[in-house]
Amino acid sequence: MAKKYVYLFSEGDASMRNLLGGKGANLAEMTKLGFPVPQGFTVSTEACTRYYTDGKKIGDDIIKEIYAQLAVTEKNVGKKFGDNENPFLVSVRSGARASMPGMMDTILNLGLNDMAVEALAKKTDNPRFAYDSYRRFIQMFSDVVMELPKSNFEKIIDEMKESRGIKLDIEFSASDLKEMIVRFKDYYKAQKGVEFPQDPKVQLIESVKAVFRSWDNPRAIYYRRMNDIPSDWGTAVNVQAMVFGNMGNTSGTGVAFTRNPSTGEKKLYGEYLINAQGEDVVAGIRTPQPIETLKQVMPKVYEQFIDIAGKLEDHYKDMQDMEFTIENEKLYMLQTRNGKRTAQAALKIAVDLVAEGMNTKEEAILKVDPKQLDTLLHPGFVPSALASATVITRGLPASPGAACGKIAFTADEAIERAKNGEKVVLVRLETSPEDIEGMDSAQGVLTARGGMTSHAAVVARGMGKCCVAGAGEIKVDDAAKKLVINGKTYTENDAISLDGSTGNVYAGMIDTQDAELTGDFGTFMEWADDIRTLQVRTNADTPRDAKQAVKFGAEGIGLCRTEHMFFEENRIRAVREMIVGKTVEERSKALDKILPMQQGDFEELYRALGGRPVTIRFLDPPLHEFVPQTDEEIADLAKEMSLSFEELKTTVENLHEFNPMLGHRGCRLAVTYPEIAAMQTTAVIQAAIKVNSEGMNVVPEIMIPLVGDIKELAYVKKTVTDTADKIIAKNGVKLSYKVGTMIEIPRAAITADELAKEAEFFSFGTNDLTQMTYGFSRDDAGKFLGEYYDTKIFESDPFVKLDHVGVGRLVKMAVELGRKTRPDIKLGICGEHGGDPSTIEFCHNIGLNYVSCSPFRVPIARLAAAQAKVKEGK
Amino acid sequence: MAKKYVYLFSEGDASMRNLLGGKGANLAEMTKLGFPVPQGFTVSTEACTRYYTDGKKIGDDIIKEIYAQLAVTEKNVGKKFGDNENPFLVSVRSGARASMPGMMDTILNLGLNDMAVEALAKKTDNPRFAYDSYRRFIQMFSDVVMELPKSNFEKIIDEMKESRGIKLDIEFSASDLKEMIVRFKDYYKAQKGVEFPQDPKVQLIESVKAVFRSWDNPRAIYYRRMNDIPSDWGTAVNVQAMVFGNMGNTSGTGVAFTRNPSTGEKKLYGEYLINAQGEDVVAGIRTPQPIETLKQVMPKVYEQFIDIAGKLEDHYKDMQDMEFTIENEKLYMLQTRNGKRTAQAALKIAVDLVAEGMNTKEEAILKVDPKQLDTLLHPGFVPSALASATVITRGLPASPGAACGKIAFTADEAIERAKNGEKVVLVRLETSPEDIEGMDSAQGVLTARGGMTSHAAVVARGMGKCCVAGAGEIKVDDAAKKLVINGKTYTENDAISLDGSTGNVYAGMIDTQDAELTGDFGTFMEWADDIRTLQVRTNADTPRDAKQAVKFGAEGIGLCRTEHMFFEENRIRAVREMIVGKTVEERSKALDKILPMQQGDFEELYRALGGRPVTIRFLDPPLHEFVPQTDEEIADLAKEMSLSFEELKTTVENLHEFNPMLGHRGCRLAVTYPEIAAMQTTAVIQAAIKVNSEGMNVVPEIMIPLVGDIKELAYVKKTVTDTADKIIAKNGVKLSYKVGTMIEIPRAAITADELAKEAEFFSFGTNDLTQMTYGFSRDDAGKFLGEYYDTKIFESDPFVKLDHVGVGRLVKMAVELGRKTRPDIKLGICGEHGGDPSTIEFCHNIGLNYVSCSPFRVPIARLAAAQAKVKEGK
Repeated sequence: MAKKYVYLFSEGDASMRNLLGGKGANLAEMTKLGFPVPQGFTVSTEACTRYYTDGKKIGDDIIKEIYAQLAVTEKNVGKKFGDNENPFLVSVRSGARASMPGMMDTILNLGLNDMAVEALAKKTDNPRFAYDSYRRFIQMFSDVVMELPKSNFEKIIDEMKESRGIKLDIEFSASDLKEMIVRFKDYYKAQKGVEFPQDPKVQLIESVKAVFRSWDNPRAIYYRRMNDIPSDWGTAVNVQAMVFGNMGNTSGTGVAFTRNPSTGEKKLYGEYLINAQGEDVVAGIRTPQPIETLKQVMPKVYEQFIDIAGKLEDHYKDMQDMEFTIENEKLYMLQTRNGKRTAQAALKIAVDLVAEGMNTKEEAILKVDPKQLDTLLHPGFVPSALASATVITRGLPASPGAACGKIAFTADEAIERAKNGEKVVLVRLETSPEDIEGMDSAQGVLTARGGMTSHAAVVARGMGKCCVAGAGEIKVDDAAKKLVINGKTYTENDAISLDGSTGNVYAGMIDTQDAELTGDFGTFMEWADDIRTLQVRTNADTPRDAKQAVKFGAEGIGLCRTEHMFFEENRIRAVREMIVGKTVEERSKALDKILPMQQGDFEELYRALGGRPVTIRFLDPPLHEFVPQTDEEIADLAKEMSLSFEELKTTVENLHEFNPMLGHRGCRLAVTYPEIAAMQTTAVIQAAIKVNSEGMNVVPEIMIPLVGDIKELAYVKKTVTDTADKIIAKNGVKLSYKVGTMIEIPRAAITADELAKEAEFFSFGTNDLTQMTYGFSRDDAGKFLGEYYDTKIFESDPFVKLDHVGVGRLVKMAVELGRKTRPDIKLGICGEHGGDPSTIEFCHNIGLNYVSCSPFRVPIARLAAAQAKVKEGK
Repeated sequence: MAKKYVYLFSEGDASMRNLLGGKGANLAEMTKLGFPVPQGFTVSTEACTRYYTDGKKIGDDIIKEIYAQLAVTEKNVGKKFGDNENPFLVSVRSGARASMPGMMDTILNLGLNDMAVEALAKKTDNPRFAYDSYRRFIQMFSDVVMELPKSNFEKIIDEMKESRGIKLDIEFSASDLKEMIVRFKDYYKAQKGVEFPQDPKVQLIESVKAVFRSWDNPRAIYYRRMNDIPSDWGTAVNVQAMVFGNMGNTSGTGVAFTRNPSTGEKKLYGEYLINAQGEDVVAGIRTPQPIETLKQVMPKVYEQFIDIAGKLEDHYKDMQDMEFTIENEKLYMLQTRNGKRTAQAALKIAVDLVAEGMNTKEEAILKVDPKQLDTLLHPGFVPSALASATVITRGLPASPGAACGKIAFTADEAIERAKNGEKVVLVRLETSPEDIEGMDSAQGVLTARGGMTSHAAVVARGMGKCCVAGAGEIKVDDAAKKLVINGKTYTENDAISLDGSTGNVYAGMIDTQDAELTGDFGTFMEWADDIRTLQVRTNADTPRDAKQAVKFGAEGIGLCRTEHMFFEENRIRAVREMIVGKTVEERSKALDKILPMQQGDFEELYRALGGRPVTIRFLDPPLHEFVPQTDEEIADLAKEMSLSFEELKTTVENLHEFNPMLGHRGCRLAVTYPEIAAMQTTAVIQAAIKVNSEGMNVVPEIMIPLVGDIKELAYVKKTVTDTADKIIAKNGVKLSYKVGTMIEIPRAAITADELAKEAEFFSFGTNDLTQMTYGFSRDDAGKFLGEYYDTKIFESDPFVKLDHVGVGRLVKMAVELGRKTRPDIKLGICGEHGGDPSTIEFCHNIGLNYVSCSPFRVPIARLAAAQAKVKEGK
């Protein structure tokens, strides 16, 4: 039997999400539940995938199937495409497996042509409505499907307004619109060389293709990369009978959430517009009414909607985000989905759903995106600083958080300035999907127009980015790069601050402070900790970071990089003396100066951790990182160190490396300069003895970096244990310590069975492991990664999300080999991947003991670990 | 039962080589065969290994066992250690599993003390002999065991000569020697603070330790690295009853080979000295007599020796290298082993042994070290050039070949100057084991003293290095850096030429030419080809190299690097135009200029290969390698190209990479600039069409470098196949071609199952694979590899011998994964390892189809492949 590509809504259900996309599956589910859904059918995601593998063509068999399901739908609704009495009009919308709001294309009013528009006028007894719908369709189809810019049509509209002396679209008469249609079609023909297509079937197939095509537009690709959505999922296309919210004052359209997506409050929350089509709400061009007021306007419709909303939340056991249209007082459900929400709302909803008995703790744990927690961890404004700050205007509190920065007027400008290290706030009249990368680069977003469900608001919440939307008082002139608020002008050199939780906009930069981690957050994280089995440590080099991490729930330090301590101003001199030292003695003398400082570092770290394990990595970077590179700097340093310029210059030149990443660093330093490892061991051990004498019980973990061979590890370990055991014996104390290794070189992973003979623990350094396994350095990959994303060779950044297929296979191999030799070996990960939820799930599944990540990632990791455990049970 | 560490000669046999070392096992075997072997015992290699793991101590149990076996031996020979009537004297010699001539220490005459020397004097009725033996022992023991430099004792001897007005050792009287002993012992006590040890058992244990210690001396480590001998093999120690070749004119000592080690001629070949100890022959201090003359001197001994030599060769079925001593007309065999031989001799002996029915072809194949063939492949002197050359002196033809270079007077100097790219000939009075690295660095070696079995001759033959030994007319003054031959002085600035096959030494540099590959060589290589199953291809970028390789038996090109073609003078301009091109069009325009030249390259290559397969690797290096780096060069080029300096400087700077090895190169270039891959494909395919139209049948193999991901390969392959198929269609011809990939990035090996979906062949680029798997670059590893060898972390160069444990595991994994997906995938190796015999054996064993190596390595690879096949059958 041939594969089925097209499904009537009545043929599907919510479980068919992968095939029908989220929107299609939920339309089918609502149909099954008996709710009022305009009928139609879904062209599956597999048809999209085939469209691409067939070289961007829709197969004849699929077209045939579309026509067949169209015929069934026409029969069901009792209308016909292009009919001169009862014409069938449809919307054509994308709908991927994962929600990608606004990223792809939509065509409304499809089916209109010169004949059908007359029929529609007659049937609705509303010629103005009919002509307006047709001109909108011509405009949208030309733009989305035929790539004739919308703005050229807007120009025609503006000319007509001018000649008629009117200002608003609404002022056009039916005959104006009829004339507009003629002008639009003429323009179309002039541009395309053919008539605007009159056959609705042609319109339909071209539109389906356009939606498939839009799966691969740049903003969709960027969104997928940001949200880790594979390109081979494809999008489905939903073809649905049109209903009209713009048929007059007994019609309307709206969106609503079963709970407040910003706070999580259990109360229907939404907006609607009377006499409007759905896109008007989302686009944020008119500011809509709160959903409650519908109760007065259309009480019966409101009641029915309340009922449906409640049933949908009960059915999906989660907060729903719904779109509806009212056509002549009849309610139609156009969409339902689990609603996007702020982190704060997500936590409250999760805790409430458990309290209400609707979710188990395990189910609730899965309802919060770990990455979202980030917004709760970063600083808000310091109240005292806020008290003296001036509110210059107000908007809607569209996405919580605090942001300050100088004003950027375009997305490109925001990207560019952010790249140069500047903090910017993106200020726009309204945002559009093209702005997404600029929003990501900015500290926060301020818009003049649009509501809580406008593009800016939805996208900013998804990003966990502070956003104030619909600040109606501001005037933005992006060409002139000016922002005018109440007569005062702000330029790109002025800073503003946004409070996304109140909607306040302040002049200047305002001091910020840490967030509190109590209430729902506390409760929720307790559940996560109860559930998870994977431990969470932190990467921290300073007592300050370590304390922050412990506050965030870190259970130890997984990576303390000691080189940062070498760079401190009062130490770099001694480090350089060591580097220019020609003999072991000269080097040891310099190291003796560093020892007490280094020991002090460790004492403080141990105290900050209060007895939790601390893994200390020995010196890793190549020595040339510690010496100046330009002749001027070398001359200065030579003078300071009483060396000749030539001598120092030679030292610096000898340290030069062709490929520093693959050079004389890591444990290779400890092999050539065992005295460095000995000094670091002395500091680690003496610090532990000192702190333990104060009543603590520190068991230091010494980690040897960049090991590739068992003999290398054994050699350095011997220096460590010889030194440590001597100090312990001399002090007459008992002190346990561990010696382990980083696994960050492919050969280490491959020979992990050997390494485990010496190593008491492994810590996967997935940054370097990724670089060496892929054979490219992070510093250089920028030269080609752009093309790699464009050509879809890469769909996610391997330095953010661990490459499970390649690097992951090495990690898994090392875990298995290591455990074979030493069943109780402690295994962790300390690359930056340690804070990435998908990587954490991978780490849980392959049986690591812990992940280690930056302090601000610790809560994220705790939640991700809990989710991994829950998913494993499924 | 406790482990046995000490074996009497009568307890072992030749099969126990790993435990007893080569010397010990063969002494046992000769004992078993009933030949006259001075009795003794062997302390096993396992005792040596334990010595090191126990922290350089000999366990009490082993000492006890040594004493026990000593007692048995004393009983057998009827002598006792330190006895005042019949004292037992022994030699203590090293003996590793693999022969390491002269690398480790030996102590003779052990057992002598103040009492035993008198008994020996009495018993032999030769006080002078006894005192001479004792003073030699004190000297040797002090030097080798107690590390008191031999030269300090020589100083005492020189003082005594002066005070007595004598010149030669032989002129000392017995009482002189007695006085010398007193002075030696006084000196010893002054230096060491204790008396010279009188207890022979103490002497023995200290000497065993010294031999164990010498396993790890720098020259032994260097030799092992050069010959790929693992350090954990350890050496055995042979303790053997002394026999004396220096007891007068009815005594003597010698070495002999059953066939000529230089030519392979089937004729006993050897030398001996009357009234000498064995070390005198090897050290080359006195020039010995040919073995034939022994027939006149001691006919019965000679006959007995001839008989034993014949029986030994029959027994071992190989040419034997024997040491013997005659003590008062009684013959003792001190050693036999398979003799080292020149490549030419090895081939003749192998072919003869088969003809004589003593070996099968398979056995014969194993008797030639593939690396040795190298000497036969390199040029000899051009006869016409030789005709006009001046012979300045003559020596012994100790190791064949031709060498020319400027004179280096010390090993260190040779090493240093060779490092700087200079060709040098090492000229020494005589060589010693300390010179080994200098000999390796030199083109050839010339010595003033020593015979065909002197240190210089033996070591040079082992290295395949040209050597002229015992050139008695030359006077070498290494302090003054002068060589005087017949009154004419030569300095480090003068060049000389050596003919190792004739012993001639010429002034100046003489032109050389290729060797002939016929005769025994041809026969032998035919056998190798019949036996082997692994194919041998070559790495060649030019028709010249390709033709050379085909002459050497290459069966195709495994790697043609196309970048070399880009560097040619008339092309680099177009390449640079491409690089500065800002658009696809500009780059394509430049590439159009390169296309006809590149196509011409391939046509010539195809013709040179005569239809054999040719694998062409697409552009690999980063583009910055094609542009100048200094401001001056950039300014020049900018002028030439009519660009502004700033513009070109910016281009060059943008091409800069932090880690070029991990940068924008390989297939990454083809992803960002598909036009390059398209041009190269066009050249490959058009050239094949052209050449095939001439009647050839070329099936080009296009190889994509540096692939790490299946999508990367698929993307580039699409450019290749789209381009190729279009050209083939346009030309209306049939042409097969293959597209494959290098496996040189760890991730490629790990995901080889994926890659095999697209790749029709894999070629392992083990140079890069080694660098990335180990995480160090070859250019930078020099900074620490020295310490890695010193600390024995590394025992061989991973860029020469493939690391089987790590990199090899990846290769094996890729082979298995690749074949799982595509059972008929063609697998080869094209890294430099492809010419290394141990790597070739590895490649055979994991089932590769071919190895590819440099043209001069092709015969070596053919033999190594045959040996791998024979060993596999065992």
